[in-house]
Amino acid sequence: MQNKIHFNIFEKQKALKEELLLKIKKERLEIGYYGLPEQSIDEVLAFVETFDLKIDTIVVLGIGGSSLGSKAIYEFLKPVKNLKRKLLFFESTDPLNIKEILSQIEIEKSHFLVISKSGTTVETISIFKYLYAQQQDVSSYTFITDRESALDNFAKKIDAKVFYLPKDVGGRFSVLSVVGLLPLALCGVDITALLQGSSRVQESFFNDGYIKETLLNKAIFYAKYHTTYSINCLFAYTETLRYFSEWYVQIWGESLGKKQNDSAFHVGLTPIGLIGPKDQHSFLQLIVEGTRDKSVTFIKINDFENELEVPDVTLPFLEKLDILNGLTFHDLITMQSDSVIEALLEQRDIPLDEIIIERVDEESMGQLIYYYELLTSLVGQLINVNTYNQPGVESGKIILKEKLKNNRKKLNHKK
Amino acid sequence: MQNKIHFNIFEKQKALKEELLLKIKKERLEIGYYGLPEQSIDEVLAFVETFDLKIDTIVVLGIGGSSLGSKAIYEFLKPVKNLKRKLLFFESTDPLNIKEILSQIEIEKSHFLVISKSGTTVETISIFKYLYAQQQDVSSYTFITDRESALDNFAKKIDAKVFYLPKDVGGRFSVLSVVGLLPLALCGVDITALLQGSSRVQESFFNDGYIKETLLNKAIFYAKYHTTYSINCLFAYTETLRYFSEWYVQIWGESLGKKQNDSAFHVGLTPIGLIGPKDQHSFLQLIVEGTRDKSVTFIKINDFENELEVPDVTLPFLEKLDILNGLTFHDLITMQSDSVIEALLEQRDIPLDEIIIERVDEESMGQLIYYYELLTSLVGQLINVNTYNQPGVESGKIILKEKLKNNRKKLNHKK
Repeated sequence: MQNKIHFNIFEKQKALKEELLLKIKKERLEIGYYGLPEQSIDEVLAFVETFDLKIDTIVVLGIGGSSLGSKAIYEFLKPVKNLKRKLLFFESTDPLNIKEILSQIEIEKSHFLVISKSGTTVETISIFKYLYAQQQDVSSYTFITDRESALDNFAKKIDAKVFYLPKDVGGRFSVLSVVGLLPLALCGVDITALLQGSSRVQESFFNDGYIKETLLNKAIFYAKYHTTYSINCLFAYTETLRYFSEWYVQIWGESLGKKQNDSAFHVGLTPIGLIGPKDQHSFLQLIVEGTRDKSVTFIKINDFENELEVPDVTLPFLEKLDILNGLTFHDLITMQSDSVIEALLEQRDIPLDEIIIERVDEESMGQLIYYYELLTSLVGQLINVNTYNQPGVESGKIILKEKLKNNRKKLNHKK
Repeated sequence: MQNKIHFNIFEKQKALKEELLLKIKKERLEIGYYGLPEQSIDEVLAFVETFDLKIDTIVVLGIGGSSLGSKAIYEFLKPVKNLKRKLLFFESTDPLNIKEILSQIEIEKSHFLVISKSGTTVETISIFKYLYAQQQDVSSYTFITDRESALDNFAKKIDAKVFYLPKDVGGRFSVLSVVGLLPLALCGVDITALLQGSSRVQESFFNDGYIKETLLNKAIFYAKYHTTYSINCLFAYTETLRYFSEWYVQIWGESLGKKQNDSAFHVGLTPIGLIGPKDQHSFLQLIVEGTRDKSVTFIKINDFENELEVPDVTLPFLEKLDILNGLTFHDLITMQSDSVIEALLEQRDIPLDEIIIERVDEESMGQLIYYYELLTSLVGQLINVNTYNQPGVESGKIILKEKLKNNRKKLNHKK
């Protein structure tokens, strides 16, 4: 991958960079995601190898960190790879959504991956109960959870296969662990290449490669101006990255939206995922003429599907658009993104950068994921937050539990 | 629909409200969308009545205002209504996306609606050329454009059916015109009920009904604090509103992100669409603990699919989650949204409101659309922008045309 930065970088902030690197290297000893590119994937590969061939659909029961990563990668690769199984997700308690997914599933040909780090995620367990009431064959389920969670104990009780999240890997940083690797490998995704991609970025960052200075410069800029440019748009010129946007929104928003360490000061950077050229006709006006509170990162794909082209047809009254004739759609979409980038650069006060990924494959995706994980960690250090927790969502969970208990009491009372 | 506002409203700003109302009533005489609930839909209904029964798929070629509205409504209704035709959208020049949609289409059973207000939208015409090279049967196409546009002249030349956008209706405010009504009616959506819903909100607003004070109060709050709460999250607790979010993002971002009238000051409000409960596991942390720059509007559905329930199953080690047993998923998702609302209210400095729509039907959607159109117009007046133009996207278009021309010269040179 390449990353061209069009805003002022901080070449000279040597001391700051040294200090930041030291902190990240220390974090690397404690936080599990950094080491995922080196993990052993033998257990996953062995499981896939002996997996029941009559199963044609893998169904993930998971929400947030348990689903967004594998969905991002699966949907990225689906249009170009001949994947061997379908991957579906139950990630809502919306009854209409549950019904719609049920209508796409043949239970006998499906295998269910129940994924919950804590083991007690309300959405995941409620849907699991619904499915389990209909299909009690234990061979239809595999569980991924923390060791010794309630779900682990349940799975062992019914003699189901369980995989464990590695130590110190949070949900939103878990895509390169078994949480993402197992569903993807079952669908035929080359998880070795995925991890190799991550490994390349990891090595480049920690061993003075090209990405080190780039990431440090970008993180320092984002952190220094985090109250000015508080919104970070990811503008991808390919529909295949639509779900990657959702993964990005989670990792960026949930990691950096915090009270600062040792203070009660609210900080945060707001992630927005955009898809071009569609969002040229929607969000772009706000970027060009709206408040100067946004940075924009464009993502383009270098080596793309290149067959489809605008035919050499002249239409009466539309002759002006003959400039499109003979152009491949790949060249057209590239010109569209370049034109928008040029137009935004003319404004001179919108911080821009471009990420160019080589092609739609596992290796490129592995790079992109690890790049964004590192960037998140770097910015988190600089704006002085705990990047890896999410205390803000607890009070809603507690209120829900109270409501559920009270409801239960009412029901029992009626009986 | 109901709208409960939980932030401080401005009961006493009588003069400001009067003035604002006067301005909007004046605007109503000039801007076309206000009157769409009263339009005649006879031509659309007659067209649908005599439409070829062997066609099972309607394909829209359109982008931005030409696609987002009908997609929002179609995807909202699809899970509950027995719609009689499939609706697909070509809204990108991404070749992988074009290929994917092509794979879902049987050309002989499809009818193509080519929608472009200006008549020269690059994305739409390039895809039209691609399709037209393969299928030249004029009865396969219907065009929607401005009268006398190049596309209108072309359509007349090939003797195709053309519908016209009503005067003074901009793309992003066109969903209740033929742009949205034609594709939806062809799929069996009750467009009469849709317009009745809009009409109810229109009447309530202009004839001193309940929604008038609510909308005025909300608009005044958003405008007064537009530099403080510059991000407006729409948090819908139903997957069916996912594409409504995209429509909202366009109308809000593109209408309000502007240089102010008579100044070069950049203003704007940034729209974000969220879906619950999924985004409780992603964006919520940023709302609760991040920078205080966000307001949140929750949308809930009152009368929902109510059959599906969590079965009364006790799982060993997961007994604590028996509080879910016997609960319908509808009640569960409602409790989830209520819990998040209560948790956010505890923070006391996050402006919240709740919109409750009656059910998943055309009437409710018509209300919601007109509500948001009015809110956009009101806020636009207050923050002193031209709500209905989009000058910021022009320079990118000009640069693209230059690139295309240069490319064309190069190609000709090679020949």
